[in-house]
Amino acid sequence: MSYTSPAVPTVSSLEGFSALLATLPGPDEAARAKAHAREPQLTKPPGALGRLEDLAAWLAAWQGRHPAAIEAPACAIFAGNHGVAALGVSAFPASVTAQMVGNFQAGGAAVNQLCRANGVALSVTALDLDRPTADFTQGPAMTEAEVVAALNAGLRAAVESNADLLCLGEMGIANTTSAAALCLALFGGTARGWTGPGTGVHGAALERKAEVVAAGVQRHAEALGRPLELLRRLGGRELAAITGAVAGARLTRRPVVLDGFICTAAAAVLEAHTPGALDHCVLAHASAEPGHRMLFEHLGLRPLLDLGLRLGEGSGAVTAVPVLRAAAACHAGMATFADAGVSDKG
Amino acid sequence: MSYTSPAVPTVSSLEGFSALLATLPGPDEAARAKAHAREPQLTKPPGALGRLEDLAAWLAAWQGRHPAAIEAPACAIFAGNHGVAALGVSAFPASVTAQMVGNFQAGGAAVNQLCRANGVALSVTALDLDRPTADFTQGPAMTEAEVVAALNAGLRAAVESNADLLCLGEMGIANTTSAAALCLALFGGTARGWTGPGTGVHGAALERKAEVVAAGVQRHAEALGRPLELLRRLGGRELAAITGAVAGARLTRRPVVLDGFICTAAAAVLEAHTPGALDHCVLAHASAEPGHRMLFEHLGLRPLLDLGLRLGEGSGAVTAVPVLRAAAACHAGMATFADAGVSDKG
Repeated sequence: MSYTSPAVPTVSSLEGFSALLATLPGPDEAARAKAHAREPQLTKPPGALGRLEDLAAWLAAWQGRHPAAIEAPACAIFAGNHGVAALGVSAFPASVTAQMVGNFQAGGAAVNQLCRANGVALSVTALDLDRPTADFTQGPAMTEAEVVAALNAGLRAAVESNADLLCLGEMGIANTTSAAALCLALFGGTARGWTGPGTGVHGAALERKAEVVAAGVQRHAEALGRPLELLRRLGGRELAAITGAVAGARLTRRPVVLDGFICTAAAAVLEAHTPGALDHCVLAHASAEPGHRMLFEHLGLRPLLDLGLRLGEGSGAVTAVPVLRAAAACHAGMATFADAGVSDKG
Repeated sequence: MSYTSPAVPTVSSLEGFSALLATLPGPDEAARAKAHAREPQLTKPPGALGRLEDLAAWLAAWQGRHPAAIEAPACAIFAGNHGVAALGVSAFPASVTAQMVGNFQAGGAAVNQLCRANGVALSVTALDLDRPTADFTQGPAMTEAEVVAALNAGLRAAVESNADLLCLGEMGIANTTSAAALCLALFGGTARGWTGPGTGVHGAALERKAEVVAAGVQRHAEALGRPLELLRRLGGRELAAITGAVAGARLTRRPVVLDGFICTAAAAVLEAHTPGALDHCVLAHASAEPGHRMLFEHLGLRPLLDLGLRLGEGSGAVTAVPVLRAAAACHAGMATFADAGVSDKG
């Protein structure tokens, strides 16, 4: 298959998005089978490349080609602003969201350096930064039109990335609060358990943040069990865009690399709505944000890296690209025992 | 500083090597201080890049320059044959060592693909493959002349690599047996605890392998407490070369990336002889070989990756290079709050 842009799917309602999710394609089992057939012929003891062997087969299955290759990796970042930022849940002012978008565009952020070092193309989509979502403790964060616009932005970015591996990331002051509320609503537990320091909130401010999370979920208790409606009520534009991008990538056979807590929370909406919807996703890393571990364990995801990152902006996802590239390169490029004249296991 | 080759140090005895170890330089604290001063100015919440922040400072300290850069990473692999291979401790015949060296030279092994994917130069040093070490259950594996020649080969390879980051690796059928014996002799415990499947030895063969390890250490009990003498008696040429390369890298300010169980065991000889001798080393990964975790915990090393690799040949070390490159790239390339016009923590 070629990684050119097919038509961009667009939805006009949450119901339409739900219908789109019913059409998500499965893996290419023929490509996966070819990977499983080649792996034991390669010049190494069976299993000696550990998780890289699994990743090579997974990439083949979800790219729909064997051998898999990572020739056009991309990272799509989405930025949004949050009404709850006014409640003092972040260590930084909300103006930093737009300032950091400027920093991404100027090439000065961590993710820019990581993309450059790893040969990953970067796109940044700023979503109505001058119109924060509504304070979700008072009402729904977004109207249906707003959440649908964000889902469409994600669908579009995923398809137009032309990527054969898509990293997702976000920027949005106060969005760990939104992610924690989504997790609490999707998976239960306690507000305090899902709430962490984010950019650096501690002590009494952290307790207040947890109260905001609890109040938001309580306010929208009637939506429990309806993941897309919870996304509308508790999420943010950048989270909804990630939800859309994960779906768009699946529709166009692009394996996805999930980043940290917020990105994984946005993806979790899909999994809660359509079990198996994240099978084309790998988790880049275990974030230092405490809710992330609980979240990825709920989802049955296993991180590739554990480096204490907690920056967001796709930084962990892009840092993990070389691991996937290593998997693809070994599987595709290694000699077989027969080719190399190496004796197989005695 | 420039990464051109200084004179290659050469030793003529284990005593000479010991004297060389007394001259190992410390870190460049001025470069480290510059890293610590720059880090909080970068456009991210304090600490948000986790371990990448520590690595950027560590690289500066051991490269002796700020900002650190990874422009000429290299991997040096050493291969040797082992007398104990005749005791049936490996799943593969000893002839595979030379065959795999041929595979490295032809570009068909895993490490070749990883080096290509990550822009790492590769050198392979085959050490007298037609002369295996002696069976260490019967006597010393090497004469002093033999171990000294191997140490010198490692010193030379490290210096001639011209690398600003040096990955180390090995190939040698039966060398997990040698590594397990070294670990038992250096750190105590039980032979069975240090002995693992290696290339794929299980059941009764694994028990026999542990007996070989125990017999070797018992045979050379008189050398306990003398790490370099234990290396001579229980090690192998490729292990001694790694010991030499770690020292050679330190002498010429090249940070080192250690690979798996065998590589770490060879490095452990240095640490046992001269505490702090591994301060310029980072551990690439936690190998699936069970002794590795015990070993790196003894050494106080923390792996960068945990991907279930157990291949050796420097594969884990080269897979970890992009993590170090990510650290250097973020630290050197990110904009400061002042440069980018981003508001610092409120």
